[in-house]
Order: sequence, then structure tokens, then C-alpha cells
Amino acid sequence: MIHLSLKDVLAMPDRKRATLMNYLSGFKSANLVGTTDAQHRHNLAIFNSVVHIGANPPYLGFILRPNTVERHTYDNIKETGYYTINAIHEDFYAKAHQTSAKYPKETSEFEAVGLTLEFKGDFFAPYVQESPIKLGLQFQEEIIVPCNGTILIVGKVLEVWLPAQSVAEDGHINLSAHGIITISGLDTYHRTEKLAQLPYAKRPSK
Amino acid sequence: MIHLSLKDVLAMPDRKRATLMNYLSGFKSANLVGTTDAQHRHNLAIFNSVVHIGANPPYLGFILRPNTVERHTYDNIKETGYYTINAIHEDFYAKAHQTSAKYPKETSEFEAVGLTLEFKGDFFAPYVQESPIKLGLQFQEEIIVPCNGTILIVGKVLEVWLPAQSVAEDGHINLSAHGIITISGLDTYHRTEKLAQLPYAKRPSK
Repeated sequence: MIHLSLKDVLAMPDRKRATLMNYLSGFKSANLVGTTDAQHRHNLAIFNSVVHIGANPPYLGFILRPNTVERHTYDNIKETGYYTINAIHEDFYAKAHQTSAKYPKETSEFEAVGLTLEFKGDFFAPYVQESPIKLGLQFQEEIIVPCNGTILIVGKVLEVWLPAQSVAEDGHINLSAHGIITISGLDTYHRTEKLAQLPYAKRPSK
Repeated sequence: MIHLSLKDVLAMPDRKRATLMNYLSGFKSANLVGTTDAQHRHNLAIFNSVVHIGANPPYLGFILRPNTVERHTYDNIKETGYYTINAIHEDFYAKAHQTSAKYPKETSEFEAVGLTLEFKGDFFAPYVQESPIKLGLQFQEEIIVPCNGTILIVGKVLEVWLPAQSVAEDGHINLSAHGIITISGLDTYHRTEKLAQLPYAKRPSK
């Protein structure tokens, strides 16, 4: 095996270090966050950092780095209080990736990359029509990570849109069967194949 | 599509709601966290919540729910300051899952599930010998998420162990080729297949 010390990592060129470090945590979720600002301009941005925070009530988090291209997302969430999280399907991952380009605020990434803006009921923020799993959230709170100023945005799930018959009686969903992809690093996309759903682990009885 | 309101979600039986909500964020990283307590008793626990926090210096986070079975991990990290993060390979995901059973503190999950304890150099916490990507971390800080008391543990990466020739010149690693798996929900394991590594996204020039 190769051994890298902290000193070795810190001595790498910035871009190589950022690339490498982004692979080491393992696979990531692949989602598009949809927002609208107070002037009704729409924004769509790819995030690989959506994480489960709680189920009762349902909370999800995602991580934002200070002063990044996803700043429009942050501004819109803070301004309006609402956003959507839309799972990325294998059929449109390249379009989803393209939302990470630096578009000006006047440009809707939905139009720029060719994904369909969809409003549902009276929910304020826009969904991605092509997405198989769509969540409508309300901003709950932001938490600053002291060591480097990274921000954890937490939202409450107000509504869930899922394919018909996708949820098993016990609440399971087969994400592989629904074509949802996963991300590694910052730019690498993978399809998945379900190996097994394992039973709740118990200590073997003697 | 199926529509679930927050009211619908809150009305579900607890276990079904917890199961469903854990799928909605998408795919998760699959790692084993290795620790040793001050009495030199070893612990190994599976986590699906390791996330990238920063690259310079390199920080990773993971999420702990208050009062869970992973409490031994938390106690050991707070007591000793060190832990390892070990990527889960397809060959041993069932053993990794079994670490989530409620073993007493005297029991080493390494022995209980059949994974090999490995110490490297003078690093205090134990690695999983079978793991293809192993990280040695020092506890940096813990951040409480106010809405539900969930804890984000942040650590600094002090060393990295990787397969020979796994890191491309620009820092990329093909996690699929190294057999690293991904998790959905709490108990579902998936292998992956790389679709593409896409170039840095730019606005099309007019």
C-alpha cells in the first residue's frame, strides 16, 4: 500500500489535494437543489453532500463551502426559506453536472442545461420534472463548522414525491432499480447494483 | 407519482418512517470506524455518514445520533483523540454490517465479526487490514445540530493508506475498480460501476 502522511498531503498541489481528499470519504449522494429568489429567478445546483439528519421530524442536511458557485442556492434559501432536493437519475447526470458551471444569477440552470422546471401545488421552490425522487424542504437552521467555516444547512422535509409502488410495506426503496446514481470525488458518476438488504444485526446467541 | 405530506410522514409507524427517510437522501459512504479505549479494548463500528469537510487541511466528518449503539465509538474518540476510517469492500460488507449489533464494551467487534485488527506504525487506533482505503484521524471538534441533537464529529486526516498505483496523477481514484461499496437506507448494500468522470463544467462560449 501507499502511505501518505499529513505532511505529504499538505505538500501536494492544491487541485490534486482537493481531488484526492474528495475521494477518501467514499461514495456520495447525487442531488440537484432547486430554488427561486424573491424576483422569481430560478436556480438549480448539483450537490454531493446531502445527508440524513433525522426522521422524526424528517430533517436532511447538506454541506456548503463558503464563497463557492453554489452561493446562489444559499442566498435563495436564506431569502425565501424553501428549496427542493431532486435525486439524479442515470439518464441526466451529465446535465446535472453542467449546473456546476458558473452561470450568472439571471440565468436559470434549468434552461441552460435542459432540465424541466416543475412547480407542484403551492410549494414555492421548483422541482426537476425528470427526477424520480423529489423532496420539498423548509430551511431549519445553518451550522458553521468552526475548523474551516464550512456550513451545514439543515431543512425539514415538507413533502415527498416518489414513483408509484416504489416504497415497500416496511419503508424500503430500491434506489438501484430506480436508476439513481452515486458520485465519488467531485466529478465521477457511478450506477449501482443492489447486493443485498441485510437483516437487523443481532449478537449471536450462545 | 406518490405524494406524501409532512403529516403523512409523521403519521407513519416509527420504524417505517425511519426506514423511508433514510433512503431519501440517496447513496451513502460505507466505512468502518476503528477505535481503542484507554484500557486497550478495541471497537469497530459501521458508519454510512462519513462526509468530506475540507481538503486543506484535510477534514472528514461523520454523524452520530445521541444514545445509539455507536456510543462506544464516540466515547473512545473523546477519551483517546484518535480513530481510523476504513472503506468497506464488497468482500466483507456482511461482516461490516454485523458490527452494528449491540456488543458489550469488552467484546472486540474485530474478533466478533471476523475482521483483522491491524496497527500501523505508532498510530494509536486500529485499522481494518482487509480495507483497501484506510485513514488515520485525530478528533478535531464536535458540533451539535440544534434541531434534534445529532452530533457531527470532525477529524483531521493524519495519514492515508491506499492501494499501490490507485491514485492518478491528478489525484483521482476509481472507487468502483477497488471494490468499494455504497449504502442506501440503513441496511442495503450496492456495488457500483463507473459511468464517467466528467470535465470541469464551464459556461458554453457564445
